[in-house]
Amino acid sequence: MFSSSRPDTGLFVSFEGPEGAGKSTQIAHLIRRLDGLNLSHTVTREPGGTPLGSRVREVLLDPELTIDPLPEFLLYSASRAQLVANVIRPALGRGEVVVCDRYADSSLAYQGFGRGLDAELLRDITAAATGGLWPHLTVLLDLDPQLGLERAARRGQPDRLERADLAFHQRLRQGFLELADADPERFLVLDATLDEAELEQRIWEAVRSRLPVPKS
Amino acid sequence: MFSSSRPDTGLFVSFEGPEGAGKSTQIAHLIRRLDGLNLSHTVTREPGGTPLGSRVREVLLDPELTIDPLPEFLLYSASRAQLVANVIRPALGRGEVVVCDRYADSSLAYQGFGRGLDAELLRDITAAATGGLWPHLTVLLDLDPQLGLERAARRGQPDRLERADLAFHQRLRQGFLELADADPERFLVLDATLDEAELEQRIWEAVRSRLPVPKS
Repeated sequence: MFSSSRPDTGLFVSFEGPEGAGKSTQIAHLIRRLDGLNLSHTVTREPGGTPLGSRVREVLLDPELTIDPLPEFLLYSASRAQLVANVIRPALGRGEVVVCDRYADSSLAYQGFGRGLDAELLRDITAAATGGLWPHLTVLLDLDPQLGLERAARRGQPDRLERADLAFHQRLRQGFLELADADPERFLVLDATLDEAELEQRIWEAVRSRLPVPKS
Repeated sequence: MFSSSRPDTGLFVSFEGPEGAGKSTQIAHLIRRLDGLNLSHTVTREPGGTPLGSRVREVLLDPELTIDPLPEFLLYSASRAQLVANVIRPALGRGEVVVCDRYADSSLAYQGFGRGLDAELLRDITAAATGGLWPHLTVLLDLDPQLGLERAARRGQPDRLERADLAFHQRLRQGFLELADADPERFLVLDATLDEAELEQRIWEAVRSRLPVPKS
């Protein structure tokens, strides 16, 4: 679907999926695995990951602000461009494993499939913002929207994204699945309702098989 | 140079030019003229003009942040998209005169000519962010960069834009002049070193001739 380039060195892994799918938990498991092998890694997230990204994140998640879909996408893209330039590319250049909690797929899903912005426009801006950099592996934790909202609500006050309606979340899920279908080599799609330990094992197998260093 | 659309009602006037060229002074004069004729008007600025824009402005002008040219452009575009949607189009729809201190030409000049970003990319993103809306009249206060920096410095601490080097400001000036050459019906280019009163008179003549209401 998208022209993409994978970095030459290091390993770039992103995690995608709706709120409440367990991304943070699985990222923590992956980091423990990497630590166990003494593999250098950089963990980051979108929006955020740089001083600029942190400021943009505050703006994006402020429930008091009116932000239309296009400016929302542009803010995510601004954060992403700075993150790629200052964090992701340098870490990959050092041969590290980069683990990113959300990446460009989130914008394509949320603002494209979810909010209805033109896919070609989003693709062009994303290509510019990332310099065409896509992960080696994207773990999509797929979850029925109704279940995801219930999980997120149990963790406390829903944020701006979580308050959007169920139909939006259904479009979002479909969007992620279409992105995965279009790039099956990059995506690992997992049912987020599987046991935490089973998910952890399957993610680790996918990461380990792509490690650019000798496998343990 | 750019496909553009002018709004059907109201009058949209932007002011462009480097720091220190006298935009604020001339905008104040124009507002007095409009008030004198009891013409409804909305005065705004970029970046800013909406709650989102104000937050983005704080980020853009924070000298502590590292912001590369592309994320910088995306942040300006985000602010602009929200400003057009929430302020400029509604005011024009009410038949008002909208006066904007900087608009998309500033991004094309600063990030395109000044920072070297691809002109076609900037044009495409700008078209999306503005929905193709361009001013009826853009007043360009043209000033030799050396003079502009001296004027700005006299007003106090230089901000992030003002601290950039002289070569950048020379590219910027050239960029504004090329934009004006490409759209001579829209642009009124004035030598910013002219007397304040003469500038005021010439700007008013250009605005008055475009007013969509009976002239006094």
